[in-house]
Amino acid sequence: MEKTNVAIVGLGTVGAGVARLLLDHGDRTARHAGRTMWLKKAVVRDKSKTRGIELPAGVLTTSLQEVIDDPEISVVAQLIGGLEPARSIMLKLMESGKDIVTANKALLAEHGPELFTRARQLGRSIAFEAAVAGGIPIIANISQCLSANQIQSLEGILNGTSNFIVTQMDEHGASYDEVVREAQRLGYAEADPTMDVDGTDAAQKLAILAHLAFGATVDWSEIPRVGIDGLDPDDLQYAKELGYRIKLLASANLSDDGLELSVAPTLVPIGTPLAEVRDAFNAIRVAGDAVGPVFYHGLGAGQMPTASAVVADLIDTAVGRTRLTFQTLEYFSIDQPPRALLREADSLRCRYYFRLPVANHPGTLASIATVLAKHNISIASVIQHDSGPGAPQRDPVPLVIMTHEASEGAASEATREIEMLDAVTGPVIRLRVEE
Amino acid sequence: MEKTNVAIVGLGTVGAGVARLLLDHGDRTARHAGRTMWLKKAVVRDKSKTRGIELPAGVLTTSLQEVIDDPEISVVAQLIGGLEPARSIMLKLMESGKDIVTANKALLAEHGPELFTRARQLGRSIAFEAAVAGGIPIIANISQCLSANQIQSLEGILNGTSNFIVTQMDEHGASYDEVVREAQRLGYAEADPTMDVDGTDAAQKLAILAHLAFGATVDWSEIPRVGIDGLDPDDLQYAKELGYRIKLLASANLSDDGLELSVAPTLVPIGTPLAEVRDAFNAIRVAGDAVGPVFYHGLGAGQMPTASAVVADLIDTAVGRTRLTFQTLEYFSIDQPPRALLREADSLRCRYYFRLPVANHPGTLASIATVLAKHNISIASVIQHDSGPGAPQRDPVPLVIMTHEASEGAASEATREIEMLDAVTGPVIRLRVEE
Repeated sequence: MEKTNVAIVGLGTVGAGVARLLLDHGDRTARHAGRTMWLKKAVVRDKSKTRGIELPAGVLTTSLQEVIDDPEISVVAQLIGGLEPARSIMLKLMESGKDIVTANKALLAEHGPELFTRARQLGRSIAFEAAVAGGIPIIANISQCLSANQIQSLEGILNGTSNFIVTQMDEHGASYDEVVREAQRLGYAEADPTMDVDGTDAAQKLAILAHLAFGATVDWSEIPRVGIDGLDPDDLQYAKELGYRIKLLASANLSDDGLELSVAPTLVPIGTPLAEVRDAFNAIRVAGDAVGPVFYHGLGAGQMPTASAVVADLIDTAVGRTRLTFQTLEYFSIDQPPRALLREADSLRCRYYFRLPVANHPGTLASIATVLAKHNISIASVIQHDSGPGAPQRDPVPLVIMTHEASEGAASEATREIEMLDAVTGPVIRLRVEE
Repeated sequence: MEKTNVAIVGLGTVGAGVARLLLDHGDRTARHAGRTMWLKKAVVRDKSKTRGIELPAGVLTTSLQEVIDDPEISVVAQLIGGLEPARSIMLKLMESGKDIVTANKALLAEHGPELFTRARQLGRSIAFEAAVAGGIPIIANISQCLSANQIQSLEGILNGTSNFIVTQMDEHGASYDEVVREAQRLGYAEADPTMDVDGTDAAQKLAILAHLAFGATVDWSEIPRVGIDGLDPDDLQYAKELGYRIKLLASANLSDDGLELSVAPTLVPIGTPLAEVRDAFNAIRVAGDAVGPVFYHGLGAGQMPTASAVVADLIDTAVGRTRLTFQTLEYFSIDQPPRALLREADSLRCRYYFRLPVANHPGTLASIATVLAKHNISIASVIQHDSGPGAPQRDPVPLVIMTHEASEGAASEATREIEMLDAVTGPVIRLRVEE
């Protein structure tokens, strides 16, 4: 049987999972690849660190050069995070003739065009299924399985940490801070979870998916994004009363005007698949003009789900499929003009959820409704709970308004004007509603 | 730009959809295939039939020989149903050097080994994404995207007609016969829906998926199957009271004892993704040992979802990916021993739902519970509705029992004994419960 020699660079959690699949399940990978997938080298910084995996003698090394100098190694799973030295290492590996499999979404979101262009110049390929939604094979599904379609929209729960936090807040009525501490204790959140909870991670993944689905070359940092770090449990509660859950949704919508991208806490109707995605799961809904809606749900991160994606890519690369896909699709070609443009978000239309603290006296609702009406925003429902006969009178009281469809521009302008009303005593919370 | 000449054999609903995608969206297919996908011929029996699609001059023909004799045509979408002449035509096309894309699941379930072996001998490939769950790319997902995994189980709602009927019965409390008439009127059911509603269609699809996921070569007709044609609205109602919906589930479970396959109406907990699959949608849940659970949901049939799968296969074949996959995976090789064996269903363990008509007098439940206890089957819940003080006394009355986990062998033996009790006045309905 033919043999493909593989190296791993970076033996962290995912790297150890990849090594385990290659070492413990060689029969399986051989069956699916039609050849032996042989782990020849694993490059680490510190050989003495324990990694919960026993490697055959001679595999572990601290020398990247050993991999570079070994012409028998044809494909490398590069599993180190961050931008540098990850970028330089990837370039060096490709220059020495290796095809690359990576899970580093930040690197692709930041340096995709440079790396992919260089790969094409060198006749090499980069596979990156593990970079987005680990256990959900969304890269292959969009670039191959749905290739007969013009994708029209895509909505994803792409950050497992955020979804875990929101689910816990929703189910236990706990505060953001409490839940983050619990998530950190359980390993669902990093010591510094900023990139997860502020929407950065989801925006980077959305930029990659938007490129595959719409051909748009997008700078992830230009995607309007709101995280869940400011989410108030009250909003989860009011949303539920209205028949919705709040999810951190990464969305892309194509219309005649262009492509609209955003990451934001969004109301999703209870009972729909996206609303029922719990804890650290990820999910993606894709609508194609021929296939209609397709929904994917699976584990978005974790050692073995991510390793599953990396090993599938190693197999695809060894078999030769990756090279064909890579040559055909011209991923992140610098020369290729974007086929879709970022639309000014102002023209996006959807329903909105508003919560605002208002003075508890007559005329308040009238003054707010007048502003909304002026901007052509019509009200679908209002929640303002009576304190009840025995309870102390609250002032200010929260007023919740669900609107019918309105443009983002109108909603944003109305928000500004409402915040200037005397009856409104603090900032307005405004969230989008997904149907 | 390179050009791949394509022919369609059979211009029915799906064929017309494929022609439309190739003709109207040439730019899109070219972008995703890296070459022009050119529809050169469409073979039909009757040129005068209207098909809702206008073909360029010279494309429509009644002569299969024209395609066979044209060396420029390298890939053929063979979209005629049934076993013959579909089988002979496929063999002829492959012998004249064409790669095949097909949606004919019955043909593959019946003649897979012969056709695939012949394709390999001839150096040709057969792509068949459209044969199972049209809009859900489950073939590519199992054979490529999840290739790092040992699939452990697979459950699918694979027949859209059955799911439409069950959903309507469930939501409107209507009888099977009423709903079938409605489904026929709406085009969701054939004039003779037997193959859909008796589980044949789902069993054929399950046989194909079981081959891909478990390497088992399965004769679909040996898969134990129960359709929805005998389903009583009462059972849907009782299931709901217990917190379940009934779905026609095609299941495959791998254990140390082997592979267990079945198609049967099954209780699925309300709120889980499978239970919420409505109308003509299909869904598949796959559990892999590395990736964990992955859930897919989409349209299982219909012109454009199926055409989407066919055109994706045409692109994969033109690009060369299909050939690599086909060579690597040895689909349906006659020489290849099955890696998984059909297990005697007796050893399968799950919870069971029983409904039985019983005489309304003391001691009835005791006698039934005694039989269950004898077979080590413990009762989880019982429903026996009081007729109410004013209502006429019913006799026999329906008794519904939900058990804890028990073996299929024990459940089947207990059923036989319960049916022999004097207090039991008719046949026992027994359904599996999926967790």
